[in-house]
Amino acid sequence: MFYFGWEGGRICFLVFWVLVMTSITPVILSGGSGTRLWPLSTQNLPKQFLPLLSDKSLLQETILRLSGLDGVTLPVIVCNEKHCSLVDEQLKAIAVPAQAIFLEPVGRNTAPAIALVAMQALANGEDPILLVLPSDHAIADTAKLHRAINLAIIYAERGNLVAFGVTPTRAETGYGYIKFAECLDENDVYEIEKFVEKPNLVIAEEYVTSGCYCWNSGMFMFRASIFLQELQICSPDIYQACHKVLAGVVKNDNCFVIQKEDFIACPSDSIDYAVMEKTKNSLVIPINEAGWSDIGSWQALWECVNKDIQGNVVIGDAVLHAVENSYIHNSQNKKVVALGVKDIIIVTIGDTVLVAHKDKSQKIKDLL
Amino acid sequence: MFYFGWEGGRICFLVFWVLVMTSITPVILSGGSGTRLWPLSTQNLPKQFLPLLSDKSLLQETILRLSGLDGVTLPVIVCNEKHCSLVDEQLKAIAVPAQAIFLEPVGRNTAPAIALVAMQALANGEDPILLVLPSDHAIADTAKLHRAINLAIIYAERGNLVAFGVTPTRAETGYGYIKFAECLDENDVYEIEKFVEKPNLVIAEEYVTSGCYCWNSGMFMFRASIFLQELQICSPDIYQACHKVLAGVVKNDNCFVIQKEDFIACPSDSIDYAVMEKTKNSLVIPINEAGWSDIGSWQALWECVNKDIQGNVVIGDAVLHAVENSYIHNSQNKKVVALGVKDIIIVTIGDTVLVAHKDKSQKIKDLL
Repeated sequence: MFYFGWEGGRICFLVFWVLVMTSITPVILSGGSGTRLWPLSTQNLPKQFLPLLSDKSLLQETILRLSGLDGVTLPVIVCNEKHCSLVDEQLKAIAVPAQAIFLEPVGRNTAPAIALVAMQALANGEDPILLVLPSDHAIADTAKLHRAINLAIIYAERGNLVAFGVTPTRAETGYGYIKFAECLDENDVYEIEKFVEKPNLVIAEEYVTSGCYCWNSGMFMFRASIFLQELQICSPDIYQACHKVLAGVVKNDNCFVIQKEDFIACPSDSIDYAVMEKTKNSLVIPINEAGWSDIGSWQALWECVNKDIQGNVVIGDAVLHAVENSYIHNSQNKKVVALGVKDIIIVTIGDTVLVAHKDKSQKIKDLL
Repeated sequence: MFYFGWEGGRICFLVFWVLVMTSITPVILSGGSGTRLWPLSTQNLPKQFLPLLSDKSLLQETILRLSGLDGVTLPVIVCNEKHCSLVDEQLKAIAVPAQAIFLEPVGRNTAPAIALVAMQALANGEDPILLVLPSDHAIADTAKLHRAINLAIIYAERGNLVAFGVTPTRAETGYGYIKFAECLDENDVYEIEKFVEKPNLVIAEEYVTSGCYCWNSGMFMFRASIFLQELQICSPDIYQACHKVLAGVVKNDNCFVIQKEDFIACPSDSIDYAVMEKTKNSLVIPINEAGWSDIGSWQALWECVNKDIQGNVVIGDAVLHAVENSYIHNSQNKKVVALGVKDIIIVTIGDTVLVAHKDKSQKIKDLL
């Protein structure tokens, strides 16, 4: 991985890569304040910073997952300003320092975040291919992700904006979908007809059986200049606002502190709708069976992780009897006893106790 | 109630009652160390001392439930020695001081406990009718209990040993049963054929449909001397051992401190098997629809108490969404959120969290 050369021969490597191949800059979107995994995930410590799948946080795993890809630069992180030191610490802990950290005073969704990173790159006289990655998803099969990224590079270099999709394995109502327009080649690269929001179950079933849809993974790849060109055409208001925001940004070491007044003035929109759906240059590459999940609920987390023979996941100590298919997270050495329950989420942290049915765990967000 | 005369004219009342009628001495068996309502009920604070049905503890309710009965003396309590001050405080709080508190160093079941109280009464030159009551049961309909007690007095004065039964309303597998031998009179007083331990479901169903069984409430009534006479015949080893135990008891104010070495030497047995089943003088009076429960599990407690329209019981604060028929006990102001669960027991106390299905809540004892 490129940035493994960081400590010693950074300059040499940089020169080498710039000369012989396009560099890929990971843009890690880490601004989520996810409450769907409450009480573990909170505004002060959202899920991307939690070690939910291993001893590494989801953010750390997102970065380490790129190990083995050619031409990848140090990552650029976009996060809420209050998570600055958290991001810094977590990146230091995996010995992959951030190339830059963009600190958002408020959330403005993904399009402005990516635009700022792209504009800053051009301002530096660079035009990298940006690999936009959510920081809080699970991907079990890294090799499949790498294959898709390596395919996407070809199209990104041709000037396309590539979305990564995931071939649906069930009629999931918790994900957005991307509808294919037309198949381009044998490598399964499709033009995009439209993005659709989370459907209801009947519609989700239609999507899956039609074969014309994939899940929207939130991962994208394109050259910085191409993205900005399309943003200017498709959502000129965001483009203009971001130019103004970037002008006001205060640079502090590798941190770019976004000014609140400027950023609030910027329209809030996702890259999906602000650019990808409107441009004629967009493509989608669906990834098959990569074990992808947005970990958008306790149920989804339970599905992602290794379970014991009764289907239980136990983090921390707990006494279980006749418990099945449940997720028990006991922080801070409380004494937790579960008895005769199925499909239940039990989370204790601090003075908080959550007991939820797995099927209903998506409702936490509404409840809070 | 007799002991309401305690403060002022105790002596006058005592003389009056002894002259004109038999006095009834409640013997409250409070030695249980119930763990079936763990984590609320613990060895240090067993369920009889907890305010589970109202703002009074079950012990306090047991005593106050006798209010309105004629001829009742101050109660005698039998409890574990470590609960001495707890008993004292709880009785003071309801302004009904104990006539005596027998402090057990270890549990020896009900027969020895009652024998010691009876022997002590005779040693004082008294021969009261003893009304033996468990301290940790629920009885919703006090009037029905009083009617049964007033009926039992007649038989107790005739020299019978009366057990109080409860007409079964379901095939309960958590209770012991009493089988009737022969009906005596129109008042539904029966001779006892046998006591049976907790049956399995098939047998319990046979019992209920046969009409020949009632639940064993653990309440009894008999004259002290008659009980001891029958104990001497039916279980002479207990009788002998208790005589020795009483000789060694150290009296301290109204407390009778039982010596451990003596009491360990006494056989452990229930009044049911040590006396009631063996004697030819025993009778049972079944009480109909008195709302009796031994509160032997969280499910049983849930059944006893008032529920909201969703069937939930919430003690302390909790946020519920799509929760039905559940019991939530949140001690000490934790933040408890329950979501999409049915028939669940959630108890938080100190650093302990219990989550159990109501149907399985009887298993807690095994689990601990």
